[in-house]
Amino acid sequence: MTQLADVPSPTQHPPKTLAVLGAGRWGMTLARLFAQASSAGNTDLSSKLARVILWDRTPDKVQHLQAARHMVFNGKTFFLPHTLLITSSLEEAVSQADIVLMVVSSSGTASMAQRMKPHLKENAIIVNASKGFDLTTLSPLSHVLNECFEGTKHPIAVLSGPNLAKEVIEGLPTAAVVASHCLHTAEMLQYYLSTERFRLYTNTDVIGVELGGALKNIFAIVSGYMDGCAMGANARAALITRALAEMTRFSLMLGAKVETIYGLSGLGDMLATCSSPLSRNYQVGFQLSQGHTLTEVLTGMAEVAEGVSTTQAVQKIIQARGIEAPIMTLVSDFLSGTPLTEEELIKKLMTRRLCSETPKGLF
Amino acid sequence: MTQLADVPSPTQHPPKTLAVLGAGRWGMTLARLFAQASSAGNTDLSSKLARVILWDRTPDKVQHLQAARHMVFNGKTFFLPHTLLITSSLEEAVSQADIVLMVVSSSGTASMAQRMKPHLKENAIIVNASKGFDLTTLSPLSHVLNECFEGTKHPIAVLSGPNLAKEVIEGLPTAAVVASHCLHTAEMLQYYLSTERFRLYTNTDVIGVELGGALKNIFAIVSGYMDGCAMGANARAALITRALAEMTRFSLMLGAKVETIYGLSGLGDMLATCSSPLSRNYQVGFQLSQGHTLTEVLTGMAEVAEGVSTTQAVQKIIQARGIEAPIMTLVSDFLSGTPLTEEELIKKLMTRRLCSETPKGLF
Repeated sequence: MTQLADVPSPTQHPPKTLAVLGAGRWGMTLARLFAQASSAGNTDLSSKLARVILWDRTPDKVQHLQAARHMVFNGKTFFLPHTLLITSSLEEAVSQADIVLMVVSSSGTASMAQRMKPHLKENAIIVNASKGFDLTTLSPLSHVLNECFEGTKHPIAVLSGPNLAKEVIEGLPTAAVVASHCLHTAEMLQYYLSTERFRLYTNTDVIGVELGGALKNIFAIVSGYMDGCAMGANARAALITRALAEMTRFSLMLGAKVETIYGLSGLGDMLATCSSPLSRNYQVGFQLSQGHTLTEVLTGMAEVAEGVSTTQAVQKIIQARGIEAPIMTLVSDFLSGTPLTEEELIKKLMTRRLCSETPKGLF
Repeated sequence: MTQLADVPSPTQHPPKTLAVLGAGRWGMTLARLFAQASSAGNTDLSSKLARVILWDRTPDKVQHLQAARHMVFNGKTFFLPHTLLITSSLEEAVSQADIVLMVVSSSGTASMAQRMKPHLKENAIIVNASKGFDLTTLSPLSHVLNECFEGTKHPIAVLSGPNLAKEVIEGLPTAAVVASHCLHTAEMLQYYLSTERFRLYTNTDVIGVELGGALKNIFAIVSGYMDGCAMGANARAALITRALAEMTRFSLMLGAKVETIYGLSGLGDMLATCSSPLSRNYQVGFQLSQGHTLTEVLTGMAEVAEGVSTTQAVQKIIQARGIEAPIMTLVSDFLSGTPLTEEELIKKLMTRRLCSETPKGLF
């Protein structure tokens, strides 16, 4: 309660500058969303965000965005508000930012954190919106950030939830979770980053929130594969039910709380991703079911399908810790080249030995 | 473990006669499924089901089915196997049956149980596959059956799960749960009613299994309404996540186990139903969103949308017990005539006061 009492009332919040790092689809969607929100009301000091800066490492992309002032998403054009600054200078972006929102690939998160560290404002909050593991250390990304910023004054947070970018950019109502070990930090972010149709809920279970977002990409691959085989909604419902138990079992071993996995950033995110044919990870599974090879599928994708590398990292953790995770292991074997037919999948997922639904309790 | 040891090995199981009561879509689908299974192999004594009898109260319907030997489902014709007997004589159907599977409407369950009681074989197992509440007593249907058969030797069981009839009839892979307080009974049913693509899991939490099946119909109404407003997958994922917490809270108050609600018959069934535009309850919500009145919608339906009467029963229980259930209350008010716009729904579901995701823990 002390922490809650510490949060100043809205009128006491001074406006903040937000830097969004990474102009992929999700990064651009978030940058546009927050820039719109910052310019929706008046632009004086009562505005929640004073400024939003979008950074990308590719100068050509930045120049194009600066000139065109719009982004194209699934064939539709979305204008970027004039309040959004776009730069390829990392120093320019982060040196002014009170909040730094990282939306780079999980494989690039560690090096990005190191690169930006010398340029950060003293108390800047680091929020990670990427979903995956560090492949070198097999660590969740929040651990990587904690290590990088240990001994500094930079609070670490994560943003995750059932957030299909194509819906957020169209203004459809969306809920998400912002988590930090410090509730005060989470509430600050909730205040600055919530909009009328992008509602943030706070959580202090950082590892739980980020694991839900990362693991669901693995199950999205199976979901896409099953839809590619036209296996139906009954089978998908059975898959997701078992996937949630598996996600929970894995996450508890890594320190997550069960209620987080059953919340927006676990179950919620899995539902949105597994039901979206536009999700990259779903597409990986769907296209594999049509006979394409993994190399063909990944080569044809403009952006990273995090589920593939997440599967590799998770499989190593599963083996090291002896976690029972039949679905994630199935995906790992499958992506490693073990052939999988529809009948085999049904057998593995559905026709286990006839047994009780909960032989070992819930998890 | 004693109960497990008591179950004879498959070769010791004598074949059984199954009666399916109610030739609605789900009843016919199940009768056809089990009749096919009984005739798939040889027809000697090693067959699991010796005979399947389908009963319906409407003589005209029975005569038509007897003559035509097929059923029409979403414009497709499905032949009924010659092993399926069809009758309008309740005595003929149940007097031979070792297992009686009730697939009548929830409002007709109590009277049907009374009517068939004098004709039952002494140890016949009563399995209920209807999903709802008894509107007179506000009791879950298993309580109604327990009361009716108290002092007899008839074990009571329920069958529920993510089972869209249109997929089961097409032979798509499906998992379901059969629950009885007596594990031995559940395992007997699992043995007799499982097929290669209709896999049954056992559970002893009868009330949990049936509440999941009943309550999900309420949330399917909201899901249909939201899709009718094109609110998107992000919002639906948020809805289902909150709905699951609400379903759990309600069910725990009535004695269910949390792991059951998070299993196939709770979460699983909700996922299948909320994502199926063909579900009657989903259609109620969808058509209401298009400006039709509830009377118009219900008049146009060939079969009962159980969610409407379930909402009424549940709302009385919510009020009597003081359960926090904002979504189910919203549906109740809406069905009672309180106008609801898309903006109001978003406000009620999504834009609560900015808060922690789990202010009171999981439930």
